[in-house]
Amino acid sequence: MRAAVLRGTRDLVVEERPEPVPGPGQVVVEVASVGVCGSDTHYYEHGRIGHFVVEAPLILGHEASGTISEVGPGVPRDRIGQRVSIEPGVPDLTCVHCLAGRYNLCPEMVFFATPPVDGALAERVAVHQAFAHPVPGSMSDDAAALLEPLSVGVWACRKGRVTAGSRVLVTGAGPIGLVAAQTALAFGATEVVVSDVNPSRLALAKDLGATQVVDVRETRLADLDHRPGILLECSGNARATLDGLAVLDRAGRAVLVGMGVDELALPVAHLQERELEIAGTFRYAGTWPTAIALVSSGRVDLDRLVTGSFALQDSAAALTAGRDDPAAVKVVVRPQT
Amino acid sequence: MRAAVLRGTRDLVVEERPEPVPGPGQVVVEVASVGVCGSDTHYYEHGRIGHFVVEAPLILGHEASGTISEVGPGVPRDRIGQRVSIEPGVPDLTCVHCLAGRYNLCPEMVFFATPPVDGALAERVAVHQAFAHPVPGSMSDDAAALLEPLSVGVWACRKGRVTAGSRVLVTGAGPIGLVAAQTALAFGATEVVVSDVNPSRLALAKDLGATQVVDVRETRLADLDHRPGILLECSGNARATLDGLAVLDRAGRAVLVGMGVDELALPVAHLQERELEIAGTFRYAGTWPTAIALVSSGRVDLDRLVTGSFALQDSAAALTAGRDDPAAVKVVVRPQT
Amino acid sequence: MRAAVLRGTRDLVVEERPEPVPGPGQVVVEVASVGVCGSDTHYYEHGRIGHFVVEAPLILGHEASGTISEVGPGVPRDRIGQRVSIEPGVPDLTCVHCLAGRYNLCPEMVFFATPPVDGALAERVAVHQAFAHPVPGSMSDDAAALLEPLSVGVWACRKGRVTAGSRVLVTGAGPIGLVAAQTALAFGATEVVVSDVNPSRLALAKDLGATQVVDVRETRLADLDHRPGILLECSGNARATLDGLAVLDRAGRAVLVGMGVDELALPVAHLQERELEIAGTFRYAGTWPTAIALVSSGRVDLDRLVTGSFALQDSAAALTAGRDDPAAVKVVVRPQT
Amino acid sequence: MRAAVLRGTRDLVVEERPEPVPGPGQVVVEVASVGVCGSDTHYYEHGRIGHFVVEAPLILGHEASGTISEVGPGVPRDRIGQRVSIEPGVPDLTCVHCLAGRYNLCPEMVFFATPPVDGALAERVAVHQAFAHPVPGSMSDDAAALLEPLSVGVWACRKGRVTAGSRVLVTGAGPIGLVAAQTALAFGATEVVVSDVNPSRLALAKDLGATQVVDVRETRLADLDHRPGILLECSGNARATLDGLAVLDRAGRAVLVGMGVDELALPVAHLQERELEIAGTFRYAGTWPTAIALVSSGRVDLDRLVTGSFALQDSAAALTAGRDDPAAVKVVVRPQT
Repeated sequence: MRAAVLRGTRDLVVEERPEPVPGPGQVVVEVASVGVCGSDTHYYEHGRIGHFVVEAPLILGHEASGTISEVGPGVPRDRIGQRVSIEPGVPDLTCVHCLAGRYNLCPEMVFFATPPVDGALAERVAVHQAFAHPVPGSMSDDAAALLEPLSVGVWACRKGRVTAGSRVLVTGAGPIGLVAAQTALAFGATEVVVSDVNPSRLALAKDLGATQVVDVRETRLADLDHRPGILLECSGNARATLDGLAVLDRAGRAVLVGMGVDELALPVAHLQERELEIAGTFRYAGTWPTAIALVSSGRVDLDRLVTGSFALQDSAAALTAGRDDPAAVKVVVRPQT
Repeated sequence: MRAAVLRGTRDLVVEERPEPVPGPGQVVVEVASVGVCGSDTHYYEHGRIGHFVVEAPLILGHEASGTISEVGPGVPRDRIGQRVSIEPGVPDLTCVHCLAGRYNLCPEMVFFATPPVDGALAERVAVHQAFAHPVPGSMSDDAAALLEPLSVGVWACRKGRVTAGSRVLVTGAGPIGLVAAQTALAFGATEVVVSDVNPSRLALAKDLGATQVVDVRETRLADLDHRPGILLECSGNARATLDGLAVLDRAGRAVLVGMGVDELALPVAHLQERELEIAGTFRYAGTWPTAIALVSSGRVDLDRLVTGSFALQDSAAALTAGRDDPAAVKVVVRPQT
Repeated sequence: MRAAVLRGTRDLVVEERPEPVPGPGQVVVEVASVGVCGSDTHYYEHGRIGHFVVEAPLILGHEASGTISEVGPGVPRDRIGQRVSIEPGVPDLTCVHCLAGRYNLCPEMVFFATPPVDGALAERVAVHQAFAHPVPGSMSDDAAALLEPLSVGVWACRKGRVTAGSRVLVTGAGPIGLVAAQTALAFGATEVVVSDVNPSRLALAKDLGATQVVDVRETRLADLDHRPGILLECSGNARATLDGLAVLDRAGRAVLVGMGVDELALPVAHLQERELEIAGTFRYAGTWPTAIALVSSGRVDLDRLVTGSFALQDSAAALTAGRDDPAAVKVVVRPQT
Repeated sequence: MRAAVLRGTRDLVVEERPEPVPGPGQVVVEVASVGVCGSDTHYYEHGRIGHFVVEAPLILGHEASGTISEVGPGVPRDRIGQRVSIEPGVPDLTCVHCLAGRYNLCPEMVFFATPPVDGALAERVAVHQAFAHPVPGSMSDDAAALLEPLSVGVWACRKGRVTAGSRVLVTGAGPIGLVAAQTALAFGATEVVVSDVNPSRLALAKDLGATQVVDVRETRLADLDHRPGILLECSGNARATLDGLAVLDRAGRAVLVGMGVDELALPVAHLQERELEIAGTFRYAGTWPTAIALVSSGRVDLDRLVTGSFALQDSAAALTAGRDDPAAVKVVVRPQT
């Protein structure tokens, strides 16, 4: 089968790879759509993210959907033909964190496209059958792939305890911020303010239901009418994080989703006097059923986020499409094309 | 001023009463709309509810809105003219329950239209300023009055922990059930099944967003496609409660809202094997801000529930309107008319 | 190897069985101590519990400790020689309940001594390596076995949200009640009232730290000085359950641990007016680390509960020892003797 | 009556002040014991804490106990003679935070010894009757006064979700750290490590039940055997806070109690990868019943913390006693002497 393989910084080739063989409890998925994530682009351009370094050829891609084409030992054959969304990380299932329901913190997690584990930018991929989630026929292949970033939004809203009537501030209107804003609305938030410096993304946020958008080049968060109770920080920008924390209401919660801030100059007395809570988040756990329900019921629109699609052969172009075009939000690769 | 006074069973007169005088921290509200609740009708027809007995003339009505016409000592004068929704119970604020945020359980609660405390079926009423909640101009008088039953729905959803993707079963499509179904949707539930035996109410439930309605004279709850994770029991009917409990998913929660069941033959082993939880609810606490946000944002439609309106003079007719007409849902009295 | 096999009602023989062979991820444990549970006795005497029926010869026993003597594929050899407490139920690890951290509700659970799954009344037994929990050298074999009933107490206290300063009522002073009382104290409860009709068990409860014991043949629960906030129902008796519910403080929680009540005549209005919550419990999840810490730190004393020990050959006597002697609390079988 | 009045930096005089007159709902307490807090000393030495500035003569002291000597309108006369512990902050009771049970965040809080509100270093003081908590005869005056710092510990443990089997790290062994360590044990923690640089305080921590003490001049927190799940930061020291965060287990919670850190260089990626949560705390809410129960039951020993007592006349000496003597922990002033 063909796969897009990263051999070194900015060196991606589409080449033949052995067909995946499903192990016990695994299925093989014929990949229909793969969303390109900022982390994929970062590996492509820098060869590393933090202490994860690409030291051997690596297949990128961890937002994927497709159709089950083969099953391994112990998996019912009637799963063949099922359309699925792939949850790209499989934990050991038995450590103290897994047994407590926070399997995202499993130290033995095996996660797509995180060196040295290959990802999904390939024609076929093997995955644990329990992490290949069936999706309804009404859901597009792209939406099924984008349940992965939606899961990040679902997890952020759970960590932030977004509920009916919540006032939420989303800092950053990239793909994750746009998903988080929609998710917050789906969790019942009645005020969802999205801030960014990119007018086209803010316009899309508004279209997707944000009750207010703030271009922070023109308007300060401090001038908001109401203090939000929850901050979903999706920019990975220190200034945005601190400005968001500054406007939080008493007893507010800040969820740090965006990556990229090294050290944050946390104003401790402010945190104490208002009893703010800050929660770091790492991926997600148990989010697919919710994500599927939110898309199926029309509460979240993932197809609207797709601004471009590429054939597998053009994966390198897909990896940089978002970087060059301010109007780009999310591009997908369709490995069967 | 005029007030509708219950003097005995089925003996209601509209008579002159002294003008309310606002005490310290109180405001007088010129009453615009009063929703008629089943409990009002029950007092009218039976003179009692449980151990609450009407022993002296009593003004009914506890779902009320209006405009502040006067303020007592310690209340800013600029509140005069403010349109408000009245939260009808004022606790002592300092008992262990109040200080813990569950003031609905305050043993010293003073609650409208609960003997011997008068209610709001009057031209004017005095109330604690903090329990007269300002409402936006976009909200109708009727909707502002019906924030009280909406609060019951909000409280039920909180107790049931309804969140994005929840599967909710609402048993009973009376005013509370219809409100609870809408509220569950506003909390993010993606499946909301409503059951009843009244086709017109079930049709209204569907119109208001229920994803499925079940006429239990024709279809058994046991035949639902999916087991709900949450039961909001709003019928006060033992059969419905038990059928609802029977279909709950493992780890499910049942919230008992509807009143009227004396003893329920609880299937203990079933509760244990599935680790079900049952929560009794009593009124609400801290719900008005959420209720206001849900109506203002269009997520809950209270005006749709109003099937009739009456002048104060016709309060007796209002109290029995719901009983006689299967299509009736909620009637209001407008005391200024 | 030898095992105690239940062939029919009151028909238990010790016979040779094939040595267990550890599958992938499994270990073989040389069994040191097995606590006899009421459910073992019930199977022995009645051949069934509810819909679980003994239809083929069955090895009883699910409270067990021992030493790892062999490891299966994928398990590090250095686990051989480790003293362990056995968690007797292994779930499928990947269903929605497992992934949410409530693996006790896994529909595919394989649980010792629950027909048709054999238990631990044998010289050796194979078990999933992650469910063989290492215990410190300071812990006795019996205590390590009794971490299983202690887990029931830990789970009950979690479900009841017992914390520092809680007032707890434990109805029933059998092994589970005695464990629950100690656990409640270890969770910080400052009042722990234990009720029963057995004076010797009540005396033991007092010795183990209960702040008050109530012989309900002489004193009514209604006469307690303080209303408890939490009921841990460990009697499986309808009268005790109802009396316990009746005295609960507002916002109280009742945890139904004891089995045996068929239908409970639940006083719904009482539940509603006081906003009581009732939680059914089923086994436990993620309790072993806590149970080990509580025993190791001296906060819970399990050895005190052991009132008799038997050789494997005398398993039938062990199964009925508790029934015949009112002073008996917990007996153990030591299969190597 | 006599009171110790701070007129300016290091200018404290004991002078006559008018007798307090109890307003409606208030009681007058004859003050028996007042604990000296670091904040009292800070006002004494610097005339301010952050934006709270002593601009007019101020009576210090907010950790106080005594006996009710007089009652205001609406308070039952039988409260006269009652021994009480004073909760020193009275909120408005009706704002959204108060009604939600987090009255410590009430913007209208009136708090003892916080400019311009006078405190309790006086012979008598008036206080809201609901904030004068009766204490049992077995509790000493000093312990009753020190329920205030104990409340800080209780609140920290609640925010940290300390429970049975928790592993807790307390950074800082000052009065709050020593209280927090005891409280963590009372909440069921089975490992409580206390770190500091003061050997006499660490020795006291060990005496009070800490399972391990660490002199961070000699041993690094990074060398602990187990990662703690909860950090109770009581030092107000940035280094200690960062070292504590660094060793937290995955899903750990850090509670920031100690004041004095301006900006903390938060390692965001570390927080995210391990999903750590940080909670700022401010005073306490609803803690007195728990604090009373913990002391009454012998689970927390407050008298052990008292290393010196002073007459009212010697309040200035009391305010600096802790600063000069490394063995000092908590000093009290007894205003009737």
